[in-house]
Amino acid sequence: MNFTELAHTHKGLFEQFMIEAVSFRSQTHLEEAMRYSLEAGGKRLRPLILFAVLEAFRKPVEPAYYYGAALEMIHTYSLIHDDLPAMDDDDLRRGKPTNHIKYSEATAILAGDALLTKAFELMTRGDASAETKVMLIKELAKASGHEGMVGGQQADMDGEFANLTVEELESIHARKTGQLIHFAFLAGGTLAEASVETVTDLEEMAYTLGVAYQIRDDILDVQGTEEELGKRTGADAKLGKSTYPALLGLEQANALLTEKLEKALALNRRIKQREETYEEELLSSFIESLAL
Amino acid sequence: MNFTELAHTHKGLFEQFMIEAVSFRSQTHLEEAMRYSLEAGGKRLRPLILFAVLEAFRKPVEPAYYYGAALEMIHTYSLIHDDLPAMDDDDLRRGKPTNHIKYSEATAILAGDALLTKAFELMTRGDASAETKVMLIKELAKASGHEGMVGGQQADMDGEFANLTVEELESIHARKTGQLIHFAFLAGGTLAEASVETVTDLEEMAYTLGVAYQIRDDILDVQGTEEELGKRTGADAKLGKSTYPALLGLEQANALLTEKLEKALALNRRIKQREETYEEELLSSFIESLAL
Repeated sequence: MNFTELAHTHKGLFEQFMIEAVSFRSQTHLEEAMRYSLEAGGKRLRPLILFAVLEAFRKPVEPAYYYGAALEMIHTYSLIHDDLPAMDDDDLRRGKPTNHIKYSEATAILAGDALLTKAFELMTRGDASAETKVMLIKELAKASGHEGMVGGQQADMDGEFANLTVEELESIHARKTGQLIHFAFLAGGTLAEASVETVTDLEEMAYTLGVAYQIRDDILDVQGTEEELGKRTGADAKLGKSTYPALLGLEQANALLTEKLEKALALNRRIKQREETYEEELLSSFIESLAL
Repeated sequence: MNFTELAHTHKGLFEQFMIEAVSFRSQTHLEEAMRYSLEAGGKRLRPLILFAVLEAFRKPVEPAYYYGAALEMIHTYSLIHDDLPAMDDDDLRRGKPTNHIKYSEATAILAGDALLTKAFELMTRGDASAETKVMLIKELAKASGHEGMVGGQQADMDGEFANLTVEELESIHARKTGQLIHFAFLAGGTLAEASVETVTDLEEMAYTLGVAYQIRDDILDVQGTEEELGKRTGADAKLGKSTYPALLGLEQANALLTEKLEKALALNRRIKQREETYEEELLSSFIESLAL
């Protein structure tokens, strides 16, 4: 099975599961606003990575929908808050009005808060042991809080007009984008009960792909059209943000992306050499799909 | 020991513990903004209730600092977000500039997000069993998310210009204020390993006091001075919000407060009748301190 086939099998069912998790008191605006952003589409990249790791180890995927939904809710809340006028001030996301445009700033703030909170409730569910749940909740909180994603967002804001080095940029993105992707790999490996060496390889793959993903995003922000991306392009340059193409030039940024993807593929081959039944294609096909 | 003595013993140590929990990467604004609101004072009501229940059952309080800090961080994040221009638009809180006035709207949004996330990380720590932690994390998420506090905040916003009945007002406040107080009692009883009947009594006491606390707050908003409260008064009336004094008149609101406090005292006596070693004074002195 490759990554596209996995997505085809699980994406629709998983999305339905996730929406149903937010169905309390539908008479208020709040759940409507939460569902609006959850339903706005997107690739469901983080949960699908988690599911792909489980599938690669030939473990059942459905019991992990809870944890995939937690990841996607944290990603979604961060987009809602990032789009607010006080932050990136975006009116368009995935081709639709952003949450605060559709509802109100107040409701968008609260819907984000509620999605973040719901994520941790979902982490307490499912069939993992209490010890595993506690460990994963701690890791998810670190990945998404002031030491992780939120800290990276603040650093990104603070650095908008500074001249960053490539290393500083990588450090910011490791937190802003990389840590949730890291959690997806870590949770997949942990729930699949993979060996310590293999979980370590998965974590290194995660950090490598987190950077690759950001380079790719920066390149697309320069090259893509609004139609393709479903959001405003050129926004980074307009805000004077440090990006990989701005720091390295487009050609070097492309070369760095290729380098990162090759490193990730090598790690994936190493796991296959260690674990005989490991289905290498699930992650190799995903890694290859990130090439431009 | 009474509630004041408990506060005297633990408040300073607990505050120090809580601030130290947010000390990663002090070079960014983010942790500074998180600490600013955590340090802004307040009565630490929710953690002290948790500690008072433990102390009343003669259990050690310090190991529960993690869970008290989680509660206080969720309360603090909700104040930061509630004060934002898009929400209540307050510039003064506990006698100091609100977070977004001191820093920026963006930083205040992120500091709130990070405090909420940190709360769940803290819930994974401490010496409770993994099963207890998972149970309490689930309860805390429900208490503070769309089914609880955040849902109550949205309902409060939606109802600002509606004519609510006392029952509707009580339902909103049960979520907006009551659920975190409920969690403080529930966590205290659970960590003290109290009997099911006693935990049920503690939970009923919690709901009763949650309403009492809100009635008291509404009365003080009409009667208090800014100096006493450290925040702008008359704000509710200015916003046309439904409050207990507005719905019932000041005299009836006072009578309802007294009634709720007497009910809470009766529940506390019932626990003492059931549990011989229970130190009744810890909660009775707290309940009495809410009288006006």
